[in-house]
Amino acid sequence: MDDTEVGYVPGPRALFGQAELRRMMHPRSVAVVGASETPGSFGRRTIENLDIGFPGRILPVNPRYREMFGRPCYASLEDLPEPPDCVILTVPREHVEPLVERAAAIGAGGVMLYSSGYAEVGRPERVAAQRRLAEIAARTGLRILGPNCAGIANLTLPAGLTFMPKFFEMRRVCGPVGLVSQSGALGYVVLQAMERGIGFSHYLTAGNSCDVDVCDLVNYLVEEEQTRVIACMLEGVRDGARLLGAAQAALRAGKPLVVYKLGGSEISRQTAMSHTGTLVGADEAYRAALRRAGAVIVDHWEEVLETATLFARAGAPRCPGVGVMAPSGGAAVMAADEAERVGLSLPPPQPQTSAKLEAVIPEFGSSANPSDITAESVKDVTMYGTCIRAFAEDPGYGAVVVPMMSVHLPGAVERAHYMAKLAPELPVPLCVVWLNEWLQGPGSEIYDGCENLPTFRTMARCITALARWNAYHAGRAELLREDAPAAAPPGAAAAARAVLAAAPPGRTLGERLSKEVLAAYGIPVTREVLARDVEAAVAAARGIGFPVALKADSPDIPHKTEAGVIRLGIADEAALRAAHAAILAAAARVPGARVDGVLVQQMARPGAEMMVGARLDAQFGPLITCGFGGVAVEVTRDVATALAPVGAREAGAMIASLRGHRLLTGYRNLPTADTGALAEIVGRLSRLACDLADEIEEIDVNPVILGPGGALAVDALVVRRAAAGAP
Amino acid sequence: MDDTEVGYVPGPRALFGQAELRRMMHPRSVAVVGASETPGSFGRRTIENLDIGFPGRILPVNPRYREMFGRPCYASLEDLPEPPDCVILTVPREHVEPLVERAAAIGAGGVMLYSSGYAEVGRPERVAAQRRLAEIAARTGLRILGPNCAGIANLTLPAGLTFMPKFFEMRRVCGPVGLVSQSGALGYVVLQAMERGIGFSHYLTAGNSCDVDVCDLVNYLVEEEQTRVIACMLEGVRDGARLLGAAQAALRAGKPLVVYKLGGSEISRQTAMSHTGTLVGADEAYRAALRRAGAVIVDHWEEVLETATLFARAGAPRCPGVGVMAPSGGAAVMAADEAERVGLSLPPPQPQTSAKLEAVIPEFGSSANPSDITAESVKDVTMYGTCIRAFAEDPGYGAVVVPMMSVHLPGAVERAHYMAKLAPELPVPLCVVWLNEWLQGPGSEIYDGCENLPTFRTMARCITALARWNAYHAGRAELLREDAPAAAPPGAAAAARAVLAAAPPGRTLGERLSKEVLAAYGIPVTREVLARDVEAAVAAARGIGFPVALKADSPDIPHKTEAGVIRLGIADEAALRAAHAAILAAAARVPGARVDGVLVQQMARPGAEMMVGARLDAQFGPLITCGFGGVAVEVTRDVATALAPVGAREAGAMIASLRGHRLLTGYRNLPTADTGALAEIVGRLSRLACDLADEIEEIDVNPVILGPGGALAVDALVVRRAAAGAP
Repeated sequence: MDDTEVGYVPGPRALFGQAELRRMMHPRSVAVVGASETPGSFGRRTIENLDIGFPGRILPVNPRYREMFGRPCYASLEDLPEPPDCVILTVPREHVEPLVERAAAIGAGGVMLYSSGYAEVGRPERVAAQRRLAEIAARTGLRILGPNCAGIANLTLPAGLTFMPKFFEMRRVCGPVGLVSQSGALGYVVLQAMERGIGFSHYLTAGNSCDVDVCDLVNYLVEEEQTRVIACMLEGVRDGARLLGAAQAALRAGKPLVVYKLGGSEISRQTAMSHTGTLVGADEAYRAALRRAGAVIVDHWEEVLETATLFARAGAPRCPGVGVMAPSGGAAVMAADEAERVGLSLPPPQPQTSAKLEAVIPEFGSSANPSDITAESVKDVTMYGTCIRAFAEDPGYGAVVVPMMSVHLPGAVERAHYMAKLAPELPVPLCVVWLNEWLQGPGSEIYDGCENLPTFRTMARCITALARWNAYHAGRAELLREDAPAAAPPGAAAAARAVLAAAPPGRTLGERLSKEVLAAYGIPVTREVLARDVEAAVAAARGIGFPVALKADSPDIPHKTEAGVIRLGIADEAALRAAHAAILAAAARVPGARVDGVLVQQMARPGAEMMVGARLDAQFGPLITCGFGGVAVEVTRDVATALAPVGAREAGAMIASLRGHRLLTGYRNLPTADTGALAEIVGRLSRLACDLADEIEEIDVNPVILGPGGALAVDALVVRRAAAGAP
Repeated sequence: MDDTEVGYVPGPRALFGQAELRRMMHPRSVAVVGASETPGSFGRRTIENLDIGFPGRILPVNPRYREMFGRPCYASLEDLPEPPDCVILTVPREHVEPLVERAAAIGAGGVMLYSSGYAEVGRPERVAAQRRLAEIAARTGLRILGPNCAGIANLTLPAGLTFMPKFFEMRRVCGPVGLVSQSGALGYVVLQAMERGIGFSHYLTAGNSCDVDVCDLVNYLVEEEQTRVIACMLEGVRDGARLLGAAQAALRAGKPLVVYKLGGSEISRQTAMSHTGTLVGADEAYRAALRRAGAVIVDHWEEVLETATLFARAGAPRCPGVGVMAPSGGAAVMAADEAERVGLSLPPPQPQTSAKLEAVIPEFGSSANPSDITAESVKDVTMYGTCIRAFAEDPGYGAVVVPMMSVHLPGAVERAHYMAKLAPELPVPLCVVWLNEWLQGPGSEIYDGCENLPTFRTMARCITALARWNAYHAGRAELLREDAPAAAPPGAAAAARAVLAAAPPGRTLGERLSKEVLAAYGIPVTREVLARDVEAAVAAARGIGFPVALKADSPDIPHKTEAGVIRLGIADEAALRAAHAAILAAAARVPGARVDGVLVQQMARPGAEMMVGARLDAQFGPLITCGFGGVAVEVTRDVATALAPVGAREAGAMIASLRGHRLLTGYRNLPTADTGALAEIVGRLSRLACDLADEIEEIDVNPVILGPGGALAVDALVVRRAAAGAP
């Protein structure tokens, strides 16, 4: 069931959708090759899972049977009475490849492969075997799901096209959430929420994805009528552009895509030489792509289902404020704590709302927001209703949160029935927090199963999901509007390539040449002169005007401050001569460092130390990063990342998302920085990274000094791609 | 059920424990005043809850009955056949006070008050009514629980001394976790985990705490034999020292105290004038006290039970490494993600462990850590056992985590029985993650109810709890060792008081006087001279030696950088004259600012900008804060807080806990800072804050420049207490 990214990369292709996948995913006939009556076998489990409820034709294939569970069994695929829409191979790996060829030959719509032992094993011959399957798919047009997948369940038919044990015994509840998972097991543990009455339209697993992958499965559900929300558990994709495409299709269709991304820890261990690389990490590339498409990213597995269910049951918010009506002061305080943590607004009630509350709640309660209507409400369900209606009718609230506490019969069940009846009459969604360690206590099944009641098992998850619900709906229109990516100045790419071509061999360019590359794209850089000796440095400083900065120009010393080869604010000639000598001495202490000379450089006006960087990601191409810079960048990690190129809106959003953004906008009498100038640099560098993606692997501009008068790149480092540059 | 801090503050007293509380909490006889047969009444609910299982004497008191549920009913407290250990008043508030007096008069052990409508209402007459109850307790020695509390449940007897509805219908499971909650409702929703088979020794609620409060209840459980772990849901206490005392008693007794602190959002809204105040917030005071006592602080309600259960079921770790044995690659990746998030170590298995795993798991699995033993394990419970034993016998692991996925009958139940039998045979705890949205699916009740199997409903909570379990046991011995608080130099307090006495009126002291206060405690401050005019400034600079810094000396300009009244690195006399004029002009633009002159100041050598601060907390007295300083302090919020005074160990731990600690310890060729010198300042300032707590409300030292050669306070601000200083 494990998923792997080792294996055949078929190259960019368009997303599959209903046209390519519907026969396999929504079949009228299913052939099960290796069908069996042997208890516990994959063949038997598949037949059993399919047997209950599937309205189409089930075609067992096994030469050892003439009949199976009372229906005819066929000796081979070629003996079938019709070309099956879907073929499931439950046979050992050794038999798979010829059967896939034969399935294509008889005109099947698609084939699902359970067998493991392909690319996930890592051995070359197994990777090759998976590649051959992909080639069959590409050549014949037969769609392949797997190998190493758990199949699918299509609850809209229904059809249990899976070997997952005892699917046929599960309560099958059809609902609006479509579930896509690379890992079959991880998807199944969410699907089992059906036992609590929560409905799904599909359970789709991708496994090794030799042909159809999670991007295709998401895209399939975008076009699927009964799916209103798509929940996706993602480990990795080979082609980031297709993930972005599927997520953008969901955004356009108005189907929220809730994503839980696993595997950040593995990938984040990859290190890179300069600042940006280590900060970005591939996990950030996934997040950048998903953010651009407005996907709802959750941090933990347990948030997937509740978040998706909220989106499915709640519609869109009429306003961002949330009202909390608690039967206990403790729960009210808890709601306020969690709301402050995630920035969810809990505005005070309007006077008429307070009046309605005060008319029914005891004096020791509270008619504020969060309110404490007290445990008296437990006795009196109509008081509950009165308070909920008061909150729901307050125009300041887009949702009402009601914690359900103290569970006992018959009150808990009566209250649940009352709530289920009340909810559809209200103008806003009613969110239930089942705040009780009796996780499935009496009444809970009514909330879980009611399609008008978004239900949560913790206050934190409810409040966090509501914040994401607000953000999704507030951001969607904006994300659908055009955000034209930054354009290159005329001739910029050619000028930048000329700098690279003329540069000395080696993977990293020195500061001076790196800044020439930036300057070609109109990025403002400090004025500077390369001086070969101290007299030339004195002359240069007179030309630029004191004070100046002095730095060793060396491709071999990326961190100049720490190496002691930089001096700032040199006020006059005598100071310059002293600094020059000190820098050369320090550079001589760096083993093997070539020094091309000393840069005499314009001093930037005071301002915030920012950084802008770019690097190539294997799945997503060039990424752009922007944030607080200087020497502390890797400790504070206050950076934002996006896919390159970015438009002006996204560049601005990156800067606004920094934790320290306040420091740039007039905080405590600090001057207001020209963040527009920084956004401009972000856009231009993102364009540069795209235009020269064949030659440049990484660019690190740190610091960029940002003040009221603009932004100025003071230091930069360009790293060429290994393929393009020398050693 | 709400809790409030409004009301009577009885002043510091020792903690109550078994001696004071045992009669009330572990009674042989219970009188229920207002006992009734009226359905739903508090009186009837209490009798019903008590009636099942209580081994002592139940004494209903109500003049309207001669007999109740088959036992005699008494007309008044005075008619009882014996002085009851515990009296529960289920009567309206108006009748409470005289009954409390009479309970004391007949020699009752304690009285529990359900009635609401006291201090929590906020009205003066109700606050006074609560104060009178406290006075009765203090005068008579009668212990009072409440008012506005839900009573208690003592599962060791058992005794349901509570009105919580249908307690008597609950599955009552006695176990090692004692639960203390201010909010009755919030405690009850955790207690209902008994329905899943999780056991408790007590459920204790404090309500308004006119006499007995959460600190006493925690201390009571410290001395209670059947309680091995104390779980506490805390909103606030009046006397921080008693909370610290109770937590330290738990630490000494080796009983982990798991605390969920509510109400941080309310309190954090309090603002203060200078940096430190706003950063600290009272919630930080609670955390500081709990950290000092080694309490296990959880962030969310849903972590309380699982964390407490882990401590109760797992003993102490033999080493910090954790092994994860997953039946799915997805779950393995999830474990690695969560472990990286909280810094839990998942070391690779030893070779002999891998060999044991490889002998049984399929080739498409993984014998690493986390391992993926594949879904084959679902079929074969002995393979499960083999792998678990291999992990448990690996000396690199202190615990083994096993996610339970795909739930179906009968396999899930068989596996659970197998695990419950296996667990006590293993040398390390076996942690089960019930990774399934079928929250109480078949088999789960076996894990929940097995006292050898710590059980979790999410991977994130399991991994986080294990990290806390490791930290508690690793830190306990250290916390129990003496950490002598910083001492004052001889005569320091008198010298500091003299500076305060001689200072001009006003609540804030200017920089120069503030630093004189610090210097009295041996805190190194920049050398400086107050110059009344420019000629005096020139002379002073010659005396100190160029370069110097120049600052306006004004008690009315706390943020000098932003006001433009500071110039650094002045190299010569001409520059000094220009700077002097500029500063006076800038100061003149601050409305109403008095300027005492201009400070000519020694320039600190380059170093990290840190801050140290102190402020008085209403509950906990002086707090000390230390962290990264400068202008960004409120944005980065990289600070640590402790109760003052601190010892050398705690001061060092504060600095080590900073996110940016790496920047001080030789990061990327930065010089290694003398953090010991900073810790020394933290200790001395904490002592100063304690010694002068009657006069000083707040001290802010920012920046403290910290370099390889030591730490030097460059700027400081002392705020006097309102009572002590002028307006």
